[in-house]
Amino acid sequence: MNPRGEDNPIRVGVLGAQGRMGAQVVKAAGGAPDMTVVATLDAGDDLAALTEAGAEVVVDFTHPDAVMGNLEFLVANGLHAVVGTTGFSEERLETVRSWLAGKPEVGVLIAPNFALGAVLAMRFAQQAARFYESVEVIELHHNRKADAPSGTAAHTARLISQARREAGLKPGADATTSELDGARGARVEDVHVHSVRLPGLVAHEEILFGQEGETLTIRHDSMDRTSFMPGVLLGVREVLGRPGLTVGLENVLDL
Amino acid sequence: MNPRGEDNPIRVGVLGAQGRMGAQVVKAAGGAPDMTVVATLDAGDDLAALTEAGAEVVVDFTHPDAVMGNLEFLVANGLHAVVGTTGFSEERLETVRSWLAGKPEVGVLIAPNFALGAVLAMRFAQQAARFYESVEVIELHHNRKADAPSGTAAHTARLISQARREAGLKPGADATTSELDGARGARVEDVHVHSVRLPGLVAHEEILFGQEGETLTIRHDSMDRTSFMPGVLLGVREVLGRPGLTVGLENVLDL
Amino acid sequence: MNPRGEDNPIRVGVLGAQGRMGAQVVKAAGGAPDMTVVATLDAGDDLAALTEAGAEVVVDFTHPDAVMGNLEFLVANGLHAVVGTTGFSEERLETVRSWLAGKPEVGVLIAPNFALGAVLAMRFAQQAARFYESVEVIELHHNRKADAPSGTAAHTARLISQARREAGLKPGADATTSELDGARGARVEDVHVHSVRLPGLVAHEEILFGQEGETLTIRHDSMDRTSFMPGVLLGVREVLGRPGLTVGLENVLDL
Amino acid sequence: MNPRGEDNPIRVGVLGAQGRMGAQVVKAAGGAPDMTVVATLDAGDDLAALTEAGAEVVVDFTHPDAVMGNLEFLVANGLHAVVGTTGFSEERLETVRSWLAGKPEVGVLIAPNFALGAVLAMRFAQQAARFYESVEVIELHHNRKADAPSGTAAHTARLISQARREAGLKPGADATTSELDGARGARVEDVHVHSVRLPGLVAHEEILFGQEGETLTIRHDSMDRTSFMPGVLLGVREVLGRPGLTVGLENVLDL
Repeated sequence: MNPRGEDNPIRVGVLGAQGRMGAQVVKAAGGAPDMTVVATLDAGDDLAALTEAGAEVVVDFTHPDAVMGNLEFLVANGLHAVVGTTGFSEERLETVRSWLAGKPEVGVLIAPNFALGAVLAMRFAQQAARFYESVEVIELHHNRKADAPSGTAAHTARLISQARREAGLKPGADATTSELDGARGARVEDVHVHSVRLPGLVAHEEILFGQEGETLTIRHDSMDRTSFMPGVLLGVREVLGRPGLTVGLENVLDL
Repeated sequence: MNPRGEDNPIRVGVLGAQGRMGAQVVKAAGGAPDMTVVATLDAGDDLAALTEAGAEVVVDFTHPDAVMGNLEFLVANGLHAVVGTTGFSEERLETVRSWLAGKPEVGVLIAPNFALGAVLAMRFAQQAARFYESVEVIELHHNRKADAPSGTAAHTARLISQARREAGLKPGADATTSELDGARGARVEDVHVHSVRLPGLVAHEEILFGQEGETLTIRHDSMDRTSFMPGVLLGVREVLGRPGLTVGLENVLDL
Repeated sequence: MNPRGEDNPIRVGVLGAQGRMGAQVVKAAGGAPDMTVVATLDAGDDLAALTEAGAEVVVDFTHPDAVMGNLEFLVANGLHAVVGTTGFSEERLETVRSWLAGKPEVGVLIAPNFALGAVLAMRFAQQAARFYESVEVIELHHNRKADAPSGTAAHTARLISQARREAGLKPGADATTSELDGARGARVEDVHVHSVRLPGLVAHEEILFGQEGETLTIRHDSMDRTSFMPGVLLGVREVLGRPGLTVGLENVLDL
Repeated sequence: MNPRGEDNPIRVGVLGAQGRMGAQVVKAAGGAPDMTVVATLDAGDDLAALTEAGAEVVVDFTHPDAVMGNLEFLVANGLHAVVGTTGFSEERLETVRSWLAGKPEVGVLIAPNFALGAVLAMRFAQQAARFYESVEVIELHHNRKADAPSGTAAHTARLISQARREAGLKPGADATTSELDGARGARVEDVHVHSVRLPGLVAHEEILFGQEGETLTIRHDSMDRTSFMPGVLLGVREVLGRPGLTVGLENVLDL
């Protein structure tokens, strides 16, 4: 790939540019030395403005109702796409793949989570899983959160559990015979997950692996929404060289 | 109190000197510059050896069946006592007090836990409790432990809960509406307690306090049994100046 | 002290009410069930509005140039004061004391730091200091901070060092014979202090105590400025029952 | 690879079997369901006992003076080797490669560090390095350690620094203008490394990555020497299917 820089910056369009996430994308891409924002659109705007502005990559943080129409236009016009909008069923992904079949040079990246640290933590947890007898997850969030455990922690636990099964590991030994109800946490498949809720916390996840004589801990601390932007910018850079559909930021990290 | 030093070391006797804890006391007191071990006894030995050797303070890590007889002798003979042997009911404590009534100059310290760090952590947790909206406890132990939560963590939680009640605090707000069974831990009074079990861990306790914008964490890590010795030596030094019965190492720390 | 509640809330005035901190005080006191904000003033406003509104306690987050005039007025008119404005020399404190001499029923609390967690962490560190052979401090801040170590960490280290000296402790043993310049941190008196700077961090301090077999860690994490408000509200409540000058939030905590 | 199990366990020989590490290998391999220890030798014993016993994989924790002779024998006789003995220069490695040229089916694994957690932590740190603006390393050890920073921490920092250079990253921004000497730690290439020394600690390493709004932390805690055994056993299993010379446990982990 011809490295892009200040001389020939990536021409970025943003859909949902006035939304909470979109506005941050405009700001982040505008501040990146290797990008220039050439078009910012919102609901009701004519998508043709993207092609007229010469956009190469378009970032979509819009709405499940709008995103499929947007994608159809982008692929048909040969624009690459980075999508943070939610609501992609397997059926929707299949539709996107069918559009891409006719445009093999176009890349589309759809990711439910652009927090690089969270994605890396999950990936490392998956990689470490088969080397340790036991593992537990602690996630800590502010006390306004409704679900316990968090979706990220539950997903992490399932990835770990799958890696352990594939390596033929049995559940970690646990000598607990007397437990006050709930002390040992929730079981997500064979992984214990503990949810702490305190004002003053934001969003934190800790994965603890142990075997005789040593422990390995992977921890991600997320302070605010700006933490998603490096992942979005990375997606913009990477999608240029990755034709076809990619699902999940972890798949463009080349770990 | 006349400070004791190398010139006039405290004369220490040890009961249960060949036991696991007693042997460490002999070693630790023997290595302390302000102490000298003058007598080491075990089951079956004549207690008179203590007075003959001129012991001032006697450390007892023996057995619930033996400790009351030992204490009766020590008090009667004007020897101070530091006791780590377990099994003291309120009735037993009352008996010790009655013996001490006739010997007002003698000091007896009975402590269930000589781990200074654990005692300090509990104390600080008690002190911090009334300043925070919410608090949770995480305790982490090796996976050969039978009970969850640990006795220390449950005790810590009860002390915190009591301090919160006395300050008129209500249980911390918790917006959890969807909980996978056990995720939010065990409830010890109004405090959530989470128990992690992993090989590679030893004995660790973390108390997390939170309010909008900040958290305070107190953590104790115990690696092995030698960690009790500084508490025992402190008890030996302090009991000399504290006539009467004292229960709990925290009560000689002057915090 | 007659406990104040919703029926007879504390009547609070705020000086510097449109300032960054003052605005938060107005909001926080306005939201507290046992307080009511009766006057909000800024530079140029007539202080008489405070007495006219019947304020009992006045919070001052103004400017070193303004605060002495404000305090003279408050004391003369029998209003209690909670002051977060900086720049109090010993000479200024002496002046405040002289004003209070003629108004023995008035309370003034001047505090350089209203972050409860930071104040508690320092206090606990001071209390724990004499029980441990060694101690080190790690402080972690965002990478826009100009000084290393932080003022809070340096102050904490000095308090610890003083407590160690008073207990007759020597500097902790350190076998380092081969050190890459700076690896062992800065020495603040006899305490090693390490400063970490990373984007993504906010303001964090960790005090680690160690002796054979165990460590005790006290950690404070501050996420944002709202974390000062519980300390300010506590000051408002406590100053009512504490006539005279009090310097430092730690002195109203009754630890 | 034909998976080995209780029915056809891997036949393991141990050189240096009475040494500190060797004795643990004998114990660990003896306890593994898929291994059986068929020969245990020490200095002076005839290496022929290994072939007579039908050993397949031989573990060598001996001495730099002995290890080359041992390896020459093992390769010549078609035995696989797992080597923890230190002192391998590039010249020595070249010699081993020349022996293996004539025995292409034999595998030799030479590793300076068998602590799985340390190896994984380093690997993950290398992988994460290019995604973050800034990174610092904190390593914490008991206070009997002579060098600061530790060899592992310095090695980790160099790997991170190399990964950052390869990704074209500049040193992380640092606004420090007023530094008490040493506060910001040692610089290992462009990575700040902080060394904490306290009794009660064992061996711990923490790598902190940060960018606006989030941090990622990888931490390894090593409690004792037994923590090397899972890495050794993994080496024994993996060397069977990896002919030729492999240097470093990380290269058999398939991350």
